[in-house]
Amino acid sequence: MSKKTPLTRDEFGLFRSLQTRWSDNDIYGHLNNVVHYKLFDTAINGWLLDEGILTLDKPAFIGLVVETGCSYFSEIRFPDKVVAGIRVGRIGTSSVRYEIALFRNEDETASAQGYFIHVYVDPDNKKPQPLETAFKGRLEEFIR
Amino acid sequence: MSKKTPLTRDEFGLFRSLQTRWSDNDIYGHLNNVVHYKLFDTAINGWLLDEGILTLDKPAFIGLVVETGCSYFSEIRFPDKVVAGIRVGRIGTSSVRYEIALFRNEDETASAQGYFIHVYVDPDNKKPQPLETAFKGRLEEFIR
Amino acid sequence: MSKKTPLTRDEFGLFRSLQTRWSDNDIYGHLNNVVHYKLFDTAINGWLLDEGILTLDKPAFIGLVVETGCSYFSEIRFPDKVVAGIRVGRIGTSSVRYEIALFRNEDETASAQGYFIHVYVDPDNKKPQPLETAFKGRLEEFIR
Amino acid sequence: MSKKTPLTRDEFGLFRSLQTRWSDNDIYGHLNNVVHYKLFDTAINGWLLDEGILTLDKPAFIGLVVETGCSYFSEIRFPDKVVAGIRVGRIGTSSVRYEIALFRNEDETASAQGYFIHVYVDPDNKKPQPLETAFKGRLEEFIR
Repeated sequence: MSKKTPLTRDEFGLFRSLQTRWSDNDIYGHLNNVVHYKLFDTAINGWLLDEGILTLDKPAFIGLVVETGCSYFSEIRFPDKVVAGIRVGRIGTSSVRYEIALFRNEDETASAQGYFIHVYVDPDNKKPQPLETAFKGRLEEFIR
Repeated sequence: MSKKTPLTRDEFGLFRSLQTRWSDNDIYGHLNNVVHYKLFDTAINGWLLDEGILTLDKPAFIGLVVETGCSYFSEIRFPDKVVAGIRVGRIGTSSVRYEIALFRNEDETASAQGYFIHVYVDPDNKKPQPLETAFKGRLEEFIR
Repeated sequence: MSKKTPLTRDEFGLFRSLQTRWSDNDIYGHLNNVVHYKLFDTAINGWLLDEGILTLDKPAFIGLVVETGCSYFSEIRFPDKVVAGIRVGRIGTSSVRYEIALFRNEDETASAQGYFIHVYVDPDNKKPQPLETAFKGRLEEFIR
Repeated sequence: MSKKTPLTRDEFGLFRSLQTRWSDNDIYGHLNNVVHYKLFDTAINGWLLDEGILTLDKPAFIGLVVETGCSYFSEIRFPDKVVAGIRVGRIGTSSVRYEIALFRNEDETASAQGYFIHVYVDPDNKKPQPLETAFKGRLEEFIR
């Protein structure tokens, strides 16, 4: 994923609709750069929860974030709506690299895009766990 | 507005649909108490912006928050959705007391409720401005 | 605690030094109203943790927030520093009402003040637990 | 800056002491991954403001964030304190790449590290402005 050229919606197969909040706008009147990561986190974990892959109560595994990055191309500001495009960049034994682009309102071109690497670990001892087959299969549908 | 008894949806005339975020859940696995105020702010300012009463660019006035409060009855946690019910408690010369209840998913009874007092001021000198007639008229529709 | 008159430092016996953050400043260039509650939470729980009353791992009890409120008198903005004055307003069987004032930099008069009611519950069944005697004793020192 | 090996304090020449907050701890009991970016932003902009390079009122220029990234090595959790080590990775015509490591309490080895690229622009037309000579000179002291 080149960080320098904004991606377009047709490069993604999975989408999540997200809202912005009043307090997201910073002193410069647009989303503070940290908010994009809140949206990444919400898009990915929201999908994992909806799919039943991740659970909040008595989870079989939890996703720890080991690396993230984001490039910012144009501003988003509350009350803009955001569509997050998600694709899978790489599937490791215990880790997944998700690539996410944030599309402002009806825009076809990303306002920001980045990546988010989760390692899935045992919730008690925090040791990496091999990805379950069903989870892996679902992820493979979104590789681009 | 009694803080002690949860209100129900039928006590409100204006509703806003809001999302929660992954990072809203705190160490106890539910929305941290500050998130409810982010939702209050977003519900009210989102409505004011949609109505064209408030503008982000070259605003004729801005709303400063002078007092807020919230009572918490039951937990909300990401990925729950929230519906904010809004009503107007009091209209002053330059100020408005909004009363807000947060309904979790399809719940009829509030998980939390509170109030939010805005004073509308001149953006440059920060002096209180009398509410515009049209704004006042719109607010009166939501007095309960 | 009257919400309308700013309190002064001499009305408090316990103080915590707090920092503001870049992202705390909102579109109006000052701390967004929710940040004050983040500071309340941090001041009180930070003190409880320092005292060894509250623990993060295997806690004997946890504090659930049942009611909060804040009055805003003057603006604070990053990079201002904040001193939180804390006093105890009321001690119930399982609950405590903390009163907090936020002093900007060297100010003697509060920029904002409010309250924060914790109910202490069993972490598993969420049932209220009577306050431990030692905890109660420590709290009593800060009643005003 | 390799993202994979944690840096140590001796690789930095500029340090900022930062606090964590109660609400920084997420459902897994440690700092949510977005908090690290809040600390980056606060460390860098706090330094720029202290130096008088950046101003909040009538700024000659503002810093827009065009790219950020972070690698996470070990957990930090409230009430941990954090020391941010800052160094300058690259100085462009209008942009600066800052490299930041977050050291937990007395740790010598980073818990997380990343980068933060600012482009300095005219606050009105948002066009990139060449860095002022004095600013550039100050930055050069922190190149490693």
